[in-house]
Amino acid sequence: MRTYLDCIPCLIKGALEQARLATDDERVHKEIMNEVAALVPQFSLGLTPPEMARQVHQIITRKTGSRDLFKSIKERSNRWAMELYPKLKEKVTRSTDHLLTAIEIAIAGNVIDYAIKNTLNIEAEIQKLFEEDFSQGRKGIFDYEHFKEDLAAAKTILYLADNAGEIVFDRVFIEEFCYNKKVIFAVRDKPSINDALMEDAVFCGLDKVAQVISSGVDAPGTILKYCSEEFLRIFKQADLVMSKGQGNYEALSEAERRIYFLFKVKCPVIARHSGAKLGDIVLKRSR
Amino acid sequence: MRTYLDCIPCLIKGALEQARLATDDERVHKEIMNEVAALVPQFSLGLTPPEMARQVHQIITRKTGSRDLFKSIKERSNRWAMELYPKLKEKVTRSTDHLLTAIEIAIAGNVIDYAIKNTLNIEAEIQKLFEEDFSQGRKGIFDYEHFKEDLAAAKTILYLADNAGEIVFDRVFIEEFCYNKKVIFAVRDKPSINDALMEDAVFCGLDKVAQVISSGVDAPGTILKYCSEEFLRIFKQADLVMSKGQGNYEALSEAERRIYFLFKVKCPVIARHSGAKLGDIVLKRSR
Repeated sequence: MRTYLDCIPCLIKGALEQARLATDDERVHKEIMNEVAALVPQFSLGLTPPEMARQVHQIITRKTGSRDLFKSIKERSNRWAMELYPKLKEKVTRSTDHLLTAIEIAIAGNVIDYAIKNTLNIEAEIQKLFEEDFSQGRKGIFDYEHFKEDLAAAKTILYLADNAGEIVFDRVFIEEFCYNKKVIFAVRDKPSINDALMEDAVFCGLDKVAQVISSGVDAPGTILKYCSEEFLRIFKQADLVMSKGQGNYEALSEAERRIYFLFKVKCPVIARHSGAKLGDIVLKRSR
Repeated sequence: MRTYLDCIPCLIKGALEQARLATDDERVHKEIMNEVAALVPQFSLGLTPPEMARQVHQIITRKTGSRDLFKSIKERSNRWAMELYPKLKEKVTRSTDHLLTAIEIAIAGNVIDYAIKNTLNIEAEIQKLFEEDFSQGRKGIFDYEHFKEDLAAAKTILYLADNAGEIVFDRVFIEEFCYNKKVIFAVRDKPSINDALMEDAVFCGLDKVAQVISSGVDAPGTILKYCSEEFLRIFKQADLVMSKGQGNYEALSEAERRIYFLFKVKCPVIARHSGAKLGDIVLKRSR
């Protein structure tokens, strides 16, 4: 997905939030805003939003020396999601359509990102989702029948992670429905907002249910041109690719292979591009 | 009020909205975004947000030749508010505390601005407010007792208008409680988003209840250094100054005279600065 002009104020707002996490010095915040603003005329709208976000992140790292601003937030998300883990498992077990519930849980976990960016109470937000009957939730696009077929036929699955904490929700799905398949779970290579890294995957036990690798990317989306050769080989060869979150959708919506995108629609640009509505939960098959 | 860094993404977002009203050409939108972004390093945070908005407006006018982008929106707001006018009058008449209700109505009218900026349905939004019992509404800061005293003592009132449409709500207050006073109703001098101009004041009959003047300003806030001498004389001499909307609050919160600010809190920055909460209706006395 290309970058839309609506993404620009959003990127600048995100830069300010990150700058404030890095330092209390308002002069530094302003310098960061200036540098990010100076990028705007150079932004090519042909690039994807995660590519822009990557450049913003580089400015913040250079100006503040901070490399992993969301570390404590990620740790908190992980711990909290792990506490919820037995309940998530139970929810699947008790449901009438186990697979559907596991998929809905995986997508529901994607709200963690939103909660952090909007400084909502994550716990309350997820708890609300958790208490809801997901099957009653708004499903904008939900290619469930196709997905079921492709999942049944797949021997190898590449699963693209999104946020820390959320990966516990992914684990539930993988554990329940991929025990007889080879699953490669790909995380970011370097810190990028609250996206899951190797350490988060290990903390949340993803290494027990999948082969965890780094995609090689240091952006909040799987931008193929920055991916490692190992990752690209798996990306090409896997029978099924499941991609979590808006960032991965933005980076991969035009990729030349079939991908199932699982995300919650958190912004009007993604809503328009994907054909879903703001707030929808989406399971979208490309190609 | 000075400009906060949070105002910058908001100004850029507003620039994009205005650019889209002016033309469908996305290249022009991008050029406008580039120019506005290039302003950011030059922005002095010591200036008020309306001053920034004024510069943004100048860029849009220069790039598109459009001077009054909100003209049709303003006309629609005026017509619609005039249709509501008898109901507003009736609401005052039927209330137990006429003055309180008239003040609440005047502040409620300030939601028009918000509705437009967020492309909500204005009619639905105001109708909702109108049906609510205002006295049950959230009042963050409400210096009603002081206001009542100062209003009773005032012989001359300077009333600073905010948006088109909203001025009908102001008219109700002026008509009911200022019939024995000299009221000067000040509008913007030149188009600035959906702010009321002389033509709006005449259309909505404000000239029947007050002396309507231009403040001399072409920004969405009464920035004193751009005001006409006539306005400044009245501003200094009036017994009571009533100021509508966030833009006027931003421009005048530090002014060296007592002002009563009436507005609905529409952004977190104003909430923090004024000490009220987002969504509150505010009647705030300065000094």
